[in-house]
Amino acid sequence: MKPLRMAMIGAGRMGLAHARILAGRFECRVVRVVDTVAQNALRVAAEVGAEASTALEDAFKPDIDAVIITTPTPTHAEMVEAAAQAGKAIFVEKPIALSLEAGRRAVEAVEKSGVPCQVGFQRRYDPAYVRAKELIEAGALGRLEGIRLVGRDPHPPGLEFLKTSGGLLVDMGIHDLDSARFLLGEVSEVYAIGGALAEPHLAQHGLFDTAVATLRFENGAVGTLEVALRTAYGYDIRCEVLGEKGRLHIEQDLRPNLWRYDLQGGHFERPRNFEERFAEAYAAQMVAFARNLHAGRPLYPSVRDAWYSLRLAKAAQHALETGQVVRVSEYGEL
Amino acid sequence: MKPLRMAMIGAGRMGLAHARILAGRFECRVVRVVDTVAQNALRVAAEVGAEASTALEDAFKPDIDAVIITTPTPTHAEMVEAAAQAGKAIFVEKPIALSLEAGRRAVEAVEKSGVPCQVGFQRRYDPAYVRAKELIEAGALGRLEGIRLVGRDPHPPGLEFLKTSGGLLVDMGIHDLDSARFLLGEVSEVYAIGGALAEPHLAQHGLFDTAVATLRFENGAVGTLEVALRTAYGYDIRCEVLGEKGRLHIEQDLRPNLWRYDLQGGHFERPRNFEERFAEAYAAQMVAFARNLHAGRPLYPSVRDAWYSLRLAKAAQHALETGQVVRVSEYGEL
Amino acid sequence: MKPLRMAMIGAGRMGLAHARILAGRFECRVVRVVDTVAQNALRVAAEVGAEASTALEDAFKPDIDAVIITTPTPTHAEMVEAAAQAGKAIFVEKPIALSLEAGRRAVEAVEKSGVPCQVGFQRRYDPAYVRAKELIEAGALGRLEGIRLVGRDPHPPGLEFLKTSGGLLVDMGIHDLDSARFLLGEVSEVYAIGGALAEPHLAQHGLFDTAVATLRFENGAVGTLEVALRTAYGYDIRCEVLGEKGRLHIEQDLRPNLWRYDLQGGHFERPRNFEERFAEAYAAQMVAFARNLHAGRPLYPSVRDAWYSLRLAKAAQHALETGQVVRVSEYGEL
Amino acid sequence: MKPLRMAMIGAGRMGLAHARILAGRFECRVVRVVDTVAQNALRVAAEVGAEASTALEDAFKPDIDAVIITTPTPTHAEMVEAAAQAGKAIFVEKPIALSLEAGRRAVEAVEKSGVPCQVGFQRRYDPAYVRAKELIEAGALGRLEGIRLVGRDPHPPGLEFLKTSGGLLVDMGIHDLDSARFLLGEVSEVYAIGGALAEPHLAQHGLFDTAVATLRFENGAVGTLEVALRTAYGYDIRCEVLGEKGRLHIEQDLRPNLWRYDLQGGHFERPRNFEERFAEAYAAQMVAFARNLHAGRPLYPSVRDAWYSLRLAKAAQHALETGQVVRVSEYGEL
Repeated sequence: MKPLRMAMIGAGRMGLAHARILAGRFECRVVRVVDTVAQNALRVAAEVGAEASTALEDAFKPDIDAVIITTPTPTHAEMVEAAAQAGKAIFVEKPIALSLEAGRRAVEAVEKSGVPCQVGFQRRYDPAYVRAKELIEAGALGRLEGIRLVGRDPHPPGLEFLKTSGGLLVDMGIHDLDSARFLLGEVSEVYAIGGALAEPHLAQHGLFDTAVATLRFENGAVGTLEVALRTAYGYDIRCEVLGEKGRLHIEQDLRPNLWRYDLQGGHFERPRNFEERFAEAYAAQMVAFARNLHAGRPLYPSVRDAWYSLRLAKAAQHALETGQVVRVSEYGEL
Repeated sequence: MKPLRMAMIGAGRMGLAHARILAGRFECRVVRVVDTVAQNALRVAAEVGAEASTALEDAFKPDIDAVIITTPTPTHAEMVEAAAQAGKAIFVEKPIALSLEAGRRAVEAVEKSGVPCQVGFQRRYDPAYVRAKELIEAGALGRLEGIRLVGRDPHPPGLEFLKTSGGLLVDMGIHDLDSARFLLGEVSEVYAIGGALAEPHLAQHGLFDTAVATLRFENGAVGTLEVALRTAYGYDIRCEVLGEKGRLHIEQDLRPNLWRYDLQGGHFERPRNFEERFAEAYAAQMVAFARNLHAGRPLYPSVRDAWYSLRLAKAAQHALETGQVVRVSEYGEL
Repeated sequence: MKPLRMAMIGAGRMGLAHARILAGRFECRVVRVVDTVAQNALRVAAEVGAEASTALEDAFKPDIDAVIITTPTPTHAEMVEAAAQAGKAIFVEKPIALSLEAGRRAVEAVEKSGVPCQVGFQRRYDPAYVRAKELIEAGALGRLEGIRLVGRDPHPPGLEFLKTSGGLLVDMGIHDLDSARFLLGEVSEVYAIGGALAEPHLAQHGLFDTAVATLRFENGAVGTLEVALRTAYGYDIRCEVLGEKGRLHIEQDLRPNLWRYDLQGGHFERPRNFEERFAEAYAAQMVAFARNLHAGRPLYPSVRDAWYSLRLAKAAQHALETGQVVRVSEYGEL
Repeated sequence: MKPLRMAMIGAGRMGLAHARILAGRFECRVVRVVDTVAQNALRVAAEVGAEASTALEDAFKPDIDAVIITTPTPTHAEMVEAAAQAGKAIFVEKPIALSLEAGRRAVEAVEKSGVPCQVGFQRRYDPAYVRAKELIEAGALGRLEGIRLVGRDPHPPGLEFLKTSGGLLVDMGIHDLDSARFLLGEVSEVYAIGGALAEPHLAQHGLFDTAVATLRFENGAVGTLEVALRTAYGYDIRCEVLGEKGRLHIEQDLRPNLWRYDLQGGHFERPRNFEERFAEAYAAQMVAFARNLHAGRPLYPSVRDAWYSLRLAKAAQHALETGQVVRVSEYGEL
């Protein structure tokens, strides 16, 4: 089979990262890069040897097999709808929408058109999460009883982004909440508190930079979640799953695998950001997209799956903003 | 100064452990062991070379300088009151009472009589907690922003004990909640959920074996707590404190410091119970009691401090049992 | 500049690995794969979209800019000579030869022709070794005082390979000895003992599967080395550098970063072989070759550098086989 | 049985440490402390409630059951002989002598008199070494193939001590060499190199502060040893045992079990000296002495065992000083 012809829609930080990975694969060619900011499109296009364009319709021309959508979150759903209508295979960044209604329309467009579609929850491709899932499914933990999730970014994004991102637990916490669903199953109830602890000025915009939550799962398990936008000691993503037979613990503290010892004790460096922590996962995710598409195999995770992670994130964000215990099922079903 | 003469009140597991530590100190002599069960009293007395008795008043005779109270929790407060009235220095196990009213009477009795009194929150003497406190007070974390607490016992106690212990967050969670107060300050609000996940039969008695909670602190910090009575992989006590400059992490995974490697990977053993995990802390706590008493220095932590940990534990247990967000200050002040 | 056109010479395990990495780069195209075994050439060629050939001269045709040499070690030197005479840029696997004389001819051919040439000591591209080198050069250790090297393979190669590989310390130990030179400087004296501990039948062929050695460096530092062909617990590569101000420790125990806890304690998986342990280093090494060549920058490490690592490995192997303390300088200079 | 009456011979750093441990035991009373320096004797005696004396014969009076010998190493053997002749049970610090001849006389005196005698190799009582021995004897490693030993002190002792201590591998390395014998068996051959790397002025006295060695064992296993008197990053004692089924690794990096994270990465403190690293082992060793003596059980390790560790240490020191490969059996047998 010939290489798939791909178009990037969005040429920011994530678009560039995805394009670089795809550019090295024999299953595909990145042939076009579209961004409303010409400079962005040109820069990414030059790096991967593609054409640049500022016109969205160029991504949907007949010579294109698949699109990679990394535009700002508020536009994800409409981009997915347009790509589905154009019959293109889709990779779209998380979250798939800011509202459940927009997300629902995206799911319907994809499922009605039958185009393959994968959503960018890269942790599902991280070797540690994959291995944890395998061990859980093999019964290593027995009946599942709980989870502990920590997601902390080193620095908050800009205020303008924060105002339109859907909130702390939708934009960022959705990664951890998706892991909760991936590893333990559906959440039935969530309670959350938080504050603008690291960046007090966010409070005047009704924004939070820190949240902690309890999660109750449909199977009876209970868990905790902590999400923060600013972390004094850098990036910190952890996940523990508890079961009747033991515990799995995911953490990546060392980068590189080098310890330094002096009279003050032992010291090690750590991943500073998601690019360093999840480099392998980002590559594996995009390689899976190219390979599976090329081989005609199903893509994963699906847009339907992603809608349920959005639903949970919206419920958690609502809990955080209102101080109420929120039942997730009140947010409807697909 | 001559060695202090001490009496044990209670000769169970904790009483024996404390007696053994005191028996090796030059600052004191364990001269009498009182327990309503003669066999217990005799066993401990024989081991440390003391007299045995089943009569409580023998602990308060004029030849006794100090008492070590390790009777069942419901009797702690009245024992403290009796010891205070008899003018004896006191070491009493946590929690100081099951009700805040009984606890208040114990505090008043101690403070009115002026006898020295120390409560058995041994983690305050653990080298890691002590060092964490030092680092926090030296400003290593800057402004404090959060805490993560995990307290998991390997096996639940018997049902009869559980029914009279005050509940999961009072009997066991009080250790973690005391650490929260010790390291971060007073908690203003608590929410908790849980279940009888490991021992489903507990549910019919209204008992929980697992709880997760969110904590809001008076200084604005937020945190999570997880407590469980049964843990598939053994004992697990962890504590992380977050601040504007970094994070402290307390955990003790290795016992002994020996790794084994084979084709399945690397393996290490862990502390199996509180005696193994906190051996050093239990010894340091009791040595501090003997030394400080002998030297006329103040004892620590105080019964007043312990009342506030009980208050927090009661609030958390109420949150767990009712599903309500509970404000700690509603439980009054001393 | 147009993509460089590359030919693979050798299509075995290493050839395939290198080809896959290069196939994803925009700086180059793998256009031809040469192997005396047609099946090997075809397999690798098919995977990366290149032509296959069994004729060595096809690698030196005018349309080729660079060659990647991964043939058996005894042929390395002559391949380098041929490529240099043909004016091709060269990447060649370590060691550059089995004899110092052959190695010397390869160095002379490269230096006389002026072609760029890089030798495959991939650890020099591993993030931990790179960071260690940076820290050492920045003075983090002060004056260097010692090194501890461990290199253990999971399974021995076949007997036929072992008989022609140059011996344990030349074929395998050269990696660790190259690290010693890279991080600490030149070795002046070596002593080694060993045996056929894991595979006793090797003894009848005069072969060793295990060796330990002491190293004395020109700067006065002393170190130890351990190399083994078979390791019960899998792959194990470690390196520690000691200096007047501290210690650096390189090890990679975790793959993936996942711990499992059960009643037997804690458990983690480990890299099973060099592909897993040094995946990042192998990629970085080949990317550096393509990028630097494309940009006209110097390649690294040089064939001259590699000759000195071979010299040290030969000296160490001689020490191992004779039981003598061997002075490295007796093996001559370039 | 009544408490044993013990006399300390030597009231320096080790004497005080041992006395404090014994003072807390019901099996014995430290009743006399003898030291030629009255001030030392008085200080230790005061702390444990014993009499002080400067007359050696006071340690051998009829009221004494056992002696604890912590005098300077050159006097160990004669003290053991005197104590054996006086019929006292003996605890003596390592090494038992500076010369094999003196050591032999001590062994003969003990064995002829039949008095119980224990030598102070405290690592044999460290929980990690004990557990390693158990695992090895249970077959967890299968056939033993190798060992890696590291012993590094933070600061060198004074020059006068060094001149009379028997040398680096006798005074300090004997601990690691004893571990080698304890865990793997007898060494047949040793080669060592070293230097005065940290304290160059030691070279003019023919003294070494650093040594590395290879060890060949009677069972065919091979190993490495590194010993240093001065270590930039503090105390560092490690031991790895390799076998056909796996590897055991002993190390104690954490004290207390507290990690600190900031923007520079993760940090942990380490044991700074032998008192911190082996606190538990020193206590366990002395408790075993008191308990086993009191119960009439054999003591361990024996003076005969200690002589063989001295023999190995002397052979290694000779190798270090002469540059020769030394066969241990040339030093004779008991």
